[in-house]
Amino acid sequence: MIHKFKRLLIGAPLPSEHLDHTRLPKFLALPVFASDALSSTAYATQEILIPLVLMGGLAAMGWSMPISIAIGLLLIIVSISYTQTIKAYPKGASCYLVSKDNLGTLISLIAGAGLLVGYILTVAVSCAAGVEQLVSAIPVLGRYSVSLNVLAVTILTLVNLRGAKESGAVFAIPTYLFVFLMYTLVGGGLYQYFSGSLQPLPTPTLPGLEVGDVAGPVSVILILRAFTHGCTALTGIEAVSDGVPAFQPPEAKNASITLGIMAAVLASLFVGLSFIADQYGAVPGIVLNEHNEIVVKNSLISVLAAAIFGHSTLMYYFIQFSTVAILFLAANTAYADFPRLSSFLAADRFLPHQLTNIGDRLVYSNGIVVLGGLSALLLVAFQGNNHALLPLYAIGVFISFTLSQGSMVVNWLRDRRPGWSLGLALNGFGALCTSVVFLVLAYFRFAEGAWIVLIVIPALVVMFLTIKRHYMSVRRQLAIEQLPRALNHNTVLVLVPGLNVVVTHALQYARALSPNVRAVHIDTDPEATNHLKQMWDEVAPGIPLVILDSPYRSVIGPTLEYIEVAKADRSGDWLTVLIPEFVPRKLWQHVLHNQTGLILKLALMFREGIVVTNVRYWLRA
Amino acid sequence: MIHKFKRLLIGAPLPSEHLDHTRLPKFLALPVFASDALSSTAYATQEILIPLVLMGGLAAMGWSMPISIAIGLLLIIVSISYTQTIKAYPKGASCYLVSKDNLGTLISLIAGAGLLVGYILTVAVSCAAGVEQLVSAIPVLGRYSVSLNVLAVTILTLVNLRGAKESGAVFAIPTYLFVFLMYTLVGGGLYQYFSGSLQPLPTPTLPGLEVGDVAGPVSVILILRAFTHGCTALTGIEAVSDGVPAFQPPEAKNASITLGIMAAVLASLFVGLSFIADQYGAVPGIVLNEHNEIVVKNSLISVLAAAIFGHSTLMYYFIQFSTVAILFLAANTAYADFPRLSSFLAADRFLPHQLTNIGDRLVYSNGIVVLGGLSALLLVAFQGNNHALLPLYAIGVFISFTLSQGSMVVNWLRDRRPGWSLGLALNGFGALCTSVVFLVLAYFRFAEGAWIVLIVIPALVVMFLTIKRHYMSVRRQLAIEQLPRALNHNTVLVLVPGLNVVVTHALQYARALSPNVRAVHIDTDPEATNHLKQMWDEVAPGIPLVILDSPYRSVIGPTLEYIEVAKADRSGDWLTVLIPEFVPRKLWQHVLHNQTGLILKLALMFREGIVVTNVRYWLRA
Repeated sequence: MIHKFKRLLIGAPLPSEHLDHTRLPKFLALPVFASDALSSTAYATQEILIPLVLMGGLAAMGWSMPISIAIGLLLIIVSISYTQTIKAYPKGASCYLVSKDNLGTLISLIAGAGLLVGYILTVAVSCAAGVEQLVSAIPVLGRYSVSLNVLAVTILTLVNLRGAKESGAVFAIPTYLFVFLMYTLVGGGLYQYFSGSLQPLPTPTLPGLEVGDVAGPVSVILILRAFTHGCTALTGIEAVSDGVPAFQPPEAKNASITLGIMAAVLASLFVGLSFIADQYGAVPGIVLNEHNEIVVKNSLISVLAAAIFGHSTLMYYFIQFSTVAILFLAANTAYADFPRLSSFLAADRFLPHQLTNIGDRLVYSNGIVVLGGLSALLLVAFQGNNHALLPLYAIGVFISFTLSQGSMVVNWLRDRRPGWSLGLALNGFGALCTSVVFLVLAYFRFAEGAWIVLIVIPALVVMFLTIKRHYMSVRRQLAIEQLPRALNHNTVLVLVPGLNVVVTHALQYARALSPNVRAVHIDTDPEATNHLKQMWDEVAPGIPLVILDSPYRSVIGPTLEYIEVAKADRSGDWLTVLIPEFVPRKLWQHVLHNQTGLILKLALMFREGIVVTNVRYWLRA
Repeated sequence: MIHKFKRLLIGAPLPSEHLDHTRLPKFLALPVFASDALSSTAYATQEILIPLVLMGGLAAMGWSMPISIAIGLLLIIVSISYTQTIKAYPKGASCYLVSKDNLGTLISLIAGAGLLVGYILTVAVSCAAGVEQLVSAIPVLGRYSVSLNVLAVTILTLVNLRGAKESGAVFAIPTYLFVFLMYTLVGGGLYQYFSGSLQPLPTPTLPGLEVGDVAGPVSVILILRAFTHGCTALTGIEAVSDGVPAFQPPEAKNASITLGIMAAVLASLFVGLSFIADQYGAVPGIVLNEHNEIVVKNSLISVLAAAIFGHSTLMYYFIQFSTVAILFLAANTAYADFPRLSSFLAADRFLPHQLTNIGDRLVYSNGIVVLGGLSALLLVAFQGNNHALLPLYAIGVFISFTLSQGSMVVNWLRDRRPGWSLGLALNGFGALCTSVVFLVLAYFRFAEGAWIVLIVIPALVVMFLTIKRHYMSVRRQLAIEQLPRALNHNTVLVLVPGLNVVVTHALQYARALSPNVRAVHIDTDPEATNHLKQMWDEVAPGIPLVILDSPYRSVIGPTLEYIEVAKADRSGDWLTVLIPEFVPRKLWQHVLHNQTGLILKLALMFREGIVVTNVRYWLRA
């Protein structure tokens, strides 16, 4: 029944030969690898605005444009730096592989841990942001937001367990639609701006403070803090470099071009959105929840779409639902990345090797389930609050950026291939920028949750190393060092609670196993024991019957003691303990019988040097 | 560790010879067997008053005295009837045994089910009433009343699992103290009444209706209803007849005298309390909860004690705590009765025979745990509301009364022993009275919960008969009909996932079991399979290696299929399947290894005709 339910949910098994690798042309590769990065435009500008208006008031809002431009530049620097990585690693420039190659195992494990955490957060953040956009459009869903998040993760997990062939089209339509609609939104705002018809929005009411009150100078600290918030715009840009082998040849060149296009689209959309938000004086609708945390009730995208196209217009809903779609698509990309990286780590023995198993739908099922479970847990723990999850996400991503660029610096210095000085310069500058941003992030966002990631990553590295040590120890112990010699002598003990067919069945089996059989009976009822003794020679001639006292009426204690004695002075090589058992026809009937057999089995399971066998007799009715 | 915790809670095991049977003199037998019955004075008068004042107003309160006198007479009739039962069954006149002897198995099972339900309700009702008295004295505890009830049941269960020797003194002190204090309470009231200093209490405020409004004639229906409420005064009076063998000889005579004393004390206390309550115009403090159910906040005993001795006096607290003590003592009596009756029913194969096991503290541990669990469940389901539980209790008790007296009528008519005509007259009148009261109870209290009991009892009888049928069928199937013949041929299959020490260990064991060994390998990785084939003759010369395809990479499916084939065309008598397994040193390490062995074992557990053995290899680190 469980089996049927599984088939219904995830489909029939697929034979191994269905595994294949299709190559993607650039116009399909862009949506497949860029949906994650592009989806961050849905929340990056809003993230800059929240600290500015909450801590600096409306006066500080003007800073969002310079900050956005700085982040846009950072994005372009990191993208250019990644083109060098792609050139050097055309077979796949995953941060884990690149840092393993250049910085050694330990650093690569840090990178791997950072990436795994990042993938879990991609799912959590994207789902939370998607639900946030949905709730902005349909506020009545607000009270179900945690359930909607869990539902989204569950659906993504099931879809990925089915292992639907990801034709590029599934990605292409929503991604290109989203890009088109975002450009329309920015274009609409720019048109109003240049035509002079732009009407700034009324001053918003914000919780906790009177906006506009703060008229003093905006501090450098506040600007740096807002900058760290905006860095979420960069999340996901490494995806192209991970996926180089999926491009049509020449892979590295095509991937670099795609990365360039993606960076240009992302930067222009992000800066464009920041510009029109600034011109409209738009801020997201936020409230404080009962724990005094910031919760976004009406996203910036929703506020802007309503301001430019009107609130109940078709265009408004198009924009909202297209944003929801790209965010869930972004979450989906982690369902390919996390199981693949887990399988790399597991193949290197740093994770349980079940993660390398390809399930009967030809996907890494275990990795998918782990990812779904962890991100659902995270969403419940953070109550689906995207704003609270983003600091964790950003810090994990910048660790990977820094390690990836840093690896390339080492790589250029070591190999000095043609063009190494340009590569070194570009990657070196990239590494410098991302490491500075990482430090700023760690400093400013530490208390907001970044500390969790800074604890989890070393903990994961310790776990990786512990798992590796265990597997290496097992491998040493299991290796066949010499051919096995014959060990033919077997002493068989049969536990005999009384006289019935179940016991004689087990005694027959015992005789088939060895000429050296003993029956063991625990005396809890002297009358029954006497009866057993009298009948014994007739029922089991030739098998010695050992009778053990049990002053406290326990069966387990004396049995275990006798087995220890028998183990110590056994004459042969093996000691087999047979537990006779009968199996009732129906499940409920089990409660009507002593579970002594089961308890004995559990007690004996953890004893070395014996083989325990339940000899089952099947009842007919 | 679990073992140590158990020892701490319930003590070290006791050897069997500690089982003994002390005989009780009358002055100790009275408290042991009467605490349950006497404790009902704590709630019986209050139960009469609640329907009278709520449905008839203060004008109806005057009816409490005639109703109490009628119940007092009923109590004496039933007690006299029971003396005849004691005479006829000096070895123990439990309703189950008596009705089994006279009315046949089916009726005795109804009686048994009624008694079991009654014992569960004794615990629930007595605890609920005890907590009610406690809360009356210390109102601040009111919000914890359900937790206090569960705590009380837990403590009673643990105390009884320890099997503390019930010296009569443990019962005697609280019981005699309670009787003394109740007589003092009644005496105090009577003194004020006769000295003319009695001040009636002010008219109470009651929820839901204006008391005093109803001045019309009191209906017969209301009086009958109030009567059924008061019948809870009779609960527990059958206890003496169950315990005849515990009396000093002559058992029957001493038991009858004790029963008479108990009935006199109970009737006089009950009628006395009703009388002074009537004179004071006292009613319990009741409120309606959110489900519109009646909840007693200040018990009648508490109201009376406060009226006669003053609210914050030492005497008031003495009375309250002594009432709490006798109620918990009453609950405790069911902890002796329920496990004993369960063990009788289990010995007759109507209940799981684990209920006949005497635990290591020489008590029927399983019965005690079942009783504690069920009564705690009931208390939680009824939110510890005594008033709601009492209809269930009363109906169960009157079923037993009627069956017990009815059995005696049949007994006298059948055996016609000396004095049969007097016995027949007394038991016949008793049976008539209790059966009429049973019908009145069933009619008036049906909707209030009596229906639950009238469904549960037949359901229990069906369960008893189903269990019996199963045991009889098992017994037939397990009986040894002929001496076993030799079945020596054993085919051994070893499941071989690869080449390592664990597998060679299992192959060695297989060779020790039988000359007829086959190794089975599932091909999920052609490379590994080839390696296995090449190495095989060196590692396991002479053992044929069977290689099975698995297009969907599943190990379980092909294994099960091959076993079915091997079962069908096996050459010998037995088919043994060996599953090689290694055991890591630490528990957490299990997650790092495939659980294929475990899954195979579970899948094979339910296959007939094979013996499955896990051959374990123990890792060192």
